[in-house]
Amino acid sequence: MKKVKLAEMDWVSYHDRVKDGRCKIVMPVGAIEQHGPHMSLNPDVLIPEHIACRVAERSKNMLVAPPIAYGYKSQVKSGGGNFFPGTTCVSGRSLEEYVYDVILAFLEHGNREFLIINGHFENSMFLVEAADRAVKYARLSGIELKVVLLSYWDFISEATVKKVFPDGFSGWAVEHGGVLETSIMLRIHPDLVDMSKVVDVPPAEFPPYDVFPPDPTWVPSSGTLSSPSQATSEKGEWILAECIEKIAETFS
Amino acid sequence: MKKVKLAEMDWVSYHDRVKDGRCKIVMPVGAIEQHGPHMSLNPDVLIPEHIACRVAERSKNMLVAPPIAYGYKSQVKSGGGNFFPGTTCVSGRSLEEYVYDVILAFLEHGNREFLIINGHFENSMFLVEAADRAVKYARLSGIELKVVLLSYWDFISEATVKKVFPDGFSGWAVEHGGVLETSIMLRIHPDLVDMSKVVDVPPAEFPPYDVFPPDPTWVPSSGTLSSPSQATSEKGEWILAECIEKIAETFS
Amino acid sequence: MKKVKLAEMDWVSYHDRVKDGRCKIVMPVGAIEQHGPHMSLNPDVLIPEHIACRVAERSKNMLVAPPIAYGYKSQVKSGGGNFFPGTTCVSGRSLEEYVYDVILAFLEHGNREFLIINGHFENSMFLVEAADRAVKYARLSGIELKVVLLSYWDFISEATVKKVFPDGFSGWAVEHGGVLETSIMLRIHPDLVDMSKVVDVPPAEFPPYDVFPPDPTWVPSSGTLSSPSQATSEKGEWILAECIEKIAETFS
Amino acid sequence: MKKVKLAEMDWVSYHDRVKDGRCKIVMPVGAIEQHGPHMSLNPDVLIPEHIACRVAERSKNMLVAPPIAYGYKSQVKSGGGNFFPGTTCVSGRSLEEYVYDVILAFLEHGNREFLIINGHFENSMFLVEAADRAVKYARLSGIELKVVLLSYWDFISEATVKKVFPDGFSGWAVEHGGVLETSIMLRIHPDLVDMSKVVDVPPAEFPPYDVFPPDPTWVPSSGTLSSPSQATSEKGEWILAECIEKIAETFS
Amino acid sequence: MKKVKLAEMDWVSYHDRVKDGRCKIVMPVGAIEQHGPHMSLNPDVLIPEHIACRVAERSKNMLVAPPIAYGYKSQVKSGGGNFFPGTTCVSGRSLEEYVYDVILAFLEHGNREFLIINGHFENSMFLVEAADRAVKYARLSGIELKVVLLSYWDFISEATVKKVFPDGFSGWAVEHGGVLETSIMLRIHPDLVDMSKVVDVPPAEFPPYDVFPPDPTWVPSSGTLSSPSQATSEKGEWILAECIEKIAETFS
Amino acid sequence: MKKVKLAEMDWVSYHDRVKDGRCKIVMPVGAIEQHGPHMSLNPDVLIPEHIACRVAERSKNMLVAPPIAYGYKSQVKSGGGNFFPGTTCVSGRSLEEYVYDVILAFLEHGNREFLIINGHFENSMFLVEAADRAVKYARLSGIELKVVLLSYWDFISEATVKKVFPDGFSGWAVEHGGVLETSIMLRIHPDLVDMSKVVDVPPAEFPPYDVFPPDPTWVPSSGTLSSPSQATSEKGEWILAECIEKIAETFS
Repeated sequence: MKKVKLAEMDWVSYHDRVKDGRCKIVMPVGAIEQHGPHMSLNPDVLIPEHIACRVAERSKNMLVAPPIAYGYKSQVKSGGGNFFPGTTCVSGRSLEEYVYDVILAFLEHGNREFLIINGHFENSMFLVEAADRAVKYARLSGIELKVVLLSYWDFISEATVKKVFPDGFSGWAVEHGGVLETSIMLRIHPDLVDMSKVVDVPPAEFPPYDVFPPDPTWVPSSGTLSSPSQATSEKGEWILAECIEKIAETFS
Repeated sequence: MKKVKLAEMDWVSYHDRVKDGRCKIVMPVGAIEQHGPHMSLNPDVLIPEHIACRVAERSKNMLVAPPIAYGYKSQVKSGGGNFFPGTTCVSGRSLEEYVYDVILAFLEHGNREFLIINGHFENSMFLVEAADRAVKYARLSGIELKVVLLSYWDFISEATVKKVFPDGFSGWAVEHGGVLETSIMLRIHPDLVDMSKVVDVPPAEFPPYDVFPPDPTWVPSSGTLSSPSQATSEKGEWILAECIEKIAETFS
Repeated sequence: MKKVKLAEMDWVSYHDRVKDGRCKIVMPVGAIEQHGPHMSLNPDVLIPEHIACRVAERSKNMLVAPPIAYGYKSQVKSGGGNFFPGTTCVSGRSLEEYVYDVILAFLEHGNREFLIINGHFENSMFLVEAADRAVKYARLSGIELKVVLLSYWDFISEATVKKVFPDGFSGWAVEHGGVLETSIMLRIHPDLVDMSKVVDVPPAEFPPYDVFPPDPTWVPSSGTLSSPSQATSEKGEWILAECIEKIAETFS
Repeated sequence: MKKVKLAEMDWVSYHDRVKDGRCKIVMPVGAIEQHGPHMSLNPDVLIPEHIACRVAERSKNMLVAPPIAYGYKSQVKSGGGNFFPGTTCVSGRSLEEYVYDVILAFLEHGNREFLIINGHFENSMFLVEAADRAVKYARLSGIELKVVLLSYWDFISEATVKKVFPDGFSGWAVEHGGVLETSIMLRIHPDLVDMSKVVDVPPAEFPPYDVFPPDPTWVPSSGTLSSPSQATSEKGEWILAECIEKIAETFS
Repeated sequence: MKKVKLAEMDWVSYHDRVKDGRCKIVMPVGAIEQHGPHMSLNPDVLIPEHIACRVAERSKNMLVAPPIAYGYKSQVKSGGGNFFPGTTCVSGRSLEEYVYDVILAFLEHGNREFLIINGHFENSMFLVEAADRAVKYARLSGIELKVVLLSYWDFISEATVKKVFPDGFSGWAVEHGGVLETSIMLRIHPDLVDMSKVVDVPPAEFPPYDVFPPDPTWVPSSGTLSSPSQATSEKGEWILAECIEKIAETFS
Repeated sequence: MKKVKLAEMDWVSYHDRVKDGRCKIVMPVGAIEQHGPHMSLNPDVLIPEHIACRVAERSKNMLVAPPIAYGYKSQVKSGGGNFFPGTTCVSGRSLEEYVYDVILAFLEHGNREFLIINGHFENSMFLVEAADRAVKYARLSGIELKVVLLSYWDFISEATVKKVFPDGFSGWAVEHGGVLETSIMLRIHPDLVDMSKVVDVPPAEFPPYDVFPPDPTWVPSSGTLSSPSQATSEKGEWILAECIEKIAETFS
């Protein structure tokens, strides 16, 4: 298997790969966030990193950067909320600045294309800002930079959703710690999932607004927004296969 | 009709209304953004301000703050993109800081509850950050602050959607400058809409990722993401009535 | 009457007006600040916006941007102080960043000339910084930007002052909520002035320094720094006519 | 003569002076800015530092902090403009942050009262912001801080102005590098003034607005905004004596 | 072996470990930086993470946080310089803010003690600032926080140095990519070292100052500041054993 | 003796010296920090300023900028710690921004080379960041800037150390307020040293880590980290002579 993690390369080999400016740097960005009592705190990091590596393995000109582990503050309706023990998040501007700086650092090596694979919904707009600012800064130096930003779940087709949720899909909004993420983790890191601890909850229902400080009673006390009890490694592979296939196809 | 815009009150009258700490400050936040050749640049400001005022009129203890007009950068898949002439947006942190400061300023007058009515999708996460930080800062001074954050369209029911789109709804994602916003504007500011200039476009279709710098060819050249040709003032009233009713009910 | 508010134009019409780079964008910047028990909180916004519009109407190539409503913290000796209920101000850097971003956003549409009309004394230095930084940033991209910054009262002649204050002028420093602003508001927004609530105070006198936290006993409890009792709509028109005439002449 | 410069004390002696929290820290803040071909670049630093020391010598409980030498950007109408060689200025936020941090550092030693003596007009609003923020930050820790902010020239009486300008005063606005500052420098640092190099210019006249980038043709090429030719050391002493006397009286 | 990586725990188990406030959070902070043609880019991340885990395994109350991978800009005299391909560093304030936010996030879970294990010399002062600010912020909320900051190499004794460098030690300053780091990596990640690519260089010598932009000719073209040719896994174990032993003893 | 302090020059003379872009601006940066009961708070400012002036006197093309007096927070193991009364320090980013702005301001006058002489260990990394950012910003404008950064003590040879410490040198780390700094101050500012107040302490010993908040019991209560009792003016001259000679030779 090809070495795709750039941090595991020596600088000379890395330089050989990137110096013509055609290499794409794949940057996984995630979060440390509770995902229920049955799963570790890091699916939002491990899943995009896994996808990044498998995509890069299929490509001739992609390298995977070390993932950025701490993401933007978990929100009640998408991640349970920032008050859960274990959920360990940074401010929007810290994330933005950190990602912005990392992009510009890779730019110095001659890289001109980036593929940010996001694993945590709440990161999105701060990644948008980081990417937009990096592009504009590069332009001041006469450099044209291209940053693609994606959240892996946006590549899952309706067909796959139907296959994964034969009894009906309760919607993306409540997939936090549910069948989708749990299945993927069962596939790629079964040691970090303990299905015996799964708490079976009906899909969370939320009012059409947010409130600050958040109200913990809005969220199931387990922290998952829907039940992961139907998760299986096989479903995880269906999802991953599709995401990896499509992402690889689109960007390689 | 009651005076609900606080900026139109003298300070003594305002003080009388807020000094017991029970008044809710309603803050409309929008954007200056192209909405097609048939409509002005300010629906994202005028609509939340209108809703805010009509909600406040039904309440005993709400006042509407001056709207914040310039919002976060328009994104291709939700607002056409930040490259359109007329789209005039600020950075995430400018918006965040400005809103944060305004909340803290109202706090000084004794206010403890805020209702932010957002009219521009892209603002959301920066408003989240502003609200979250304001709550935490207030807490350092021993003050419990409550900020509700809503985007008005989240209060529109499926029933109304069906009524407004009898031929099928192409989804929230492409409602930028489409039937929904145009209908509301026809209802509240008909002078700012010119239906003769409507460009009839099929609903925009986008790939499942974003790219920076944005690619203008992704967007219909008119700037609208779906056709507003079926917009009517009557539909606007249906939508508004529902939003106002529900928001008023929930928060008054 | 010509349409001069750019936010009320559709983007295509706006683009037609600005694409040759000769249009001047007029930006009113104000504050939400108490102006005595007889007047609304928004004269510092409404007056510069009114002047901006009337100036733009006389010009072939001016458009008025949505006003920036929240300004820098009111100071005791110029605005009564930041502790008055209703006075709702932002920090210096928030104002600076917000204005800076707005200028740069208009720059993207091809605009190269800006006319900032300030309505709130305390804003001045932060507007200076925003303008200076915008000019320097634009230069990095090879763009020459020009920003004119004015406070409308600087265009009032001694002759007009004598006419408006036949019994003697107590000086610009104490004109907060006094004859000048009240007269203009009587002229342009009589509904936002209630002369029956005027509190007659002698011109405020201050020591030659400032103190933080401010001492509320320095300020008349009404919040006005001189008496507005001699204000009339006619005086308002004299002042406006002169300001508008001169500004239009100088910059059209 | 008493030692009043705190930086020249050892820490134990300093501690003895400040530990009861009654000492006032006097902070001179200036600028490095051209003052014409006849004078050094540092009058805005040396004058407030001199006044600070002479005021502190008369007091039982004042110590003078090291002056902050680099101030906010020189403006055309008050300091000739930021484009003059030798004028070496920082951004508003750098000045604000630096002063804010210094105040908070002195706070840690037990100090609760500050007297900022400003020698450069353009600094004022950024010092206001630094002082305001420091007071608020201290309050979060339960500490009541008091910061007085003054510009020394505001203590000069009309009587002294008449004596210094027997042929008529052309106004504070154009006193940059003129009789006032030159006279004071002749009195306290005659080695830094060379009257043979004085350029005799009529008082500068400016339009009622500012422009960015600044237009160098607005300013006399010498950099002074009025003629310093009538400056004398004796006049400098009149001015200083009054400022020092009044400041000492008011704050000791 | 005990689970010590907190990101691999589910939130309930994590909560059980930290809720009494006695757990110490160990935070490895490193850098992505060239370490010669014979070694990967990530020793500064992997080494402190390894030490953190082995220390935590010996303790009853320590958990290891996900490492922060991107550190402050490599300097010529300590890391070869920021211009090497592969060296991928962030600005001081990005690092500071990111670490600061992460500390405060862990604080919310009840944690009160932190042990930052630094693996990259250049990070030090920015970690100092992050720790100092976090302590002060926590204090505003009435929380006493304790942050220990160490660089692992400071725990290596002179005796070990003598053993590792039997022919004489050329000093810590040039140990970048040399015997020390290479030996440790041979011990913990032999797959990331290729001794056949070692470039034998004499210890780098530098002038007693730094220059910006850096001068690449100061640095051996291999990027190592001394020769790693004498590195062995055994030496790596000696060093690690000592560091781990001492750190565990001091802080457990 | 030549005039080397640029703040003491008039702008025309200054301009004549710098306009060809070959002048080097020497910037002393220090700190206000306790140095024991026998010495003033400003050695870290006065020593680099003195060296700067004597170096500039020997050069044809150097001018000395006003020193930056307030530096980064004193650390326990290098400066006694930030909790000592009299130690008056700013945050890292304030120092960084202030220095960055000053460099860029001198750049505007045509200067292209800077020599920062640091007198306070803790400043180093923040000066690195200021210099690095200034170089990069200048490059955006097409300007090549060169900044040399040095701490004067790095120019002291082993031979001089032996001569100054005939009984053995306890190391640079504990030289705070010890023989080295005291000797230099005795030579250049004997009025700011009182040898009768010297407290004789053994060299401080510290654990191989730092802790926040700092533990005052780690530091001798006098604040010096080693005994200054053997300091003499003659030793000061030896040290200065060497530093000045070498710095002048290297950079003139």
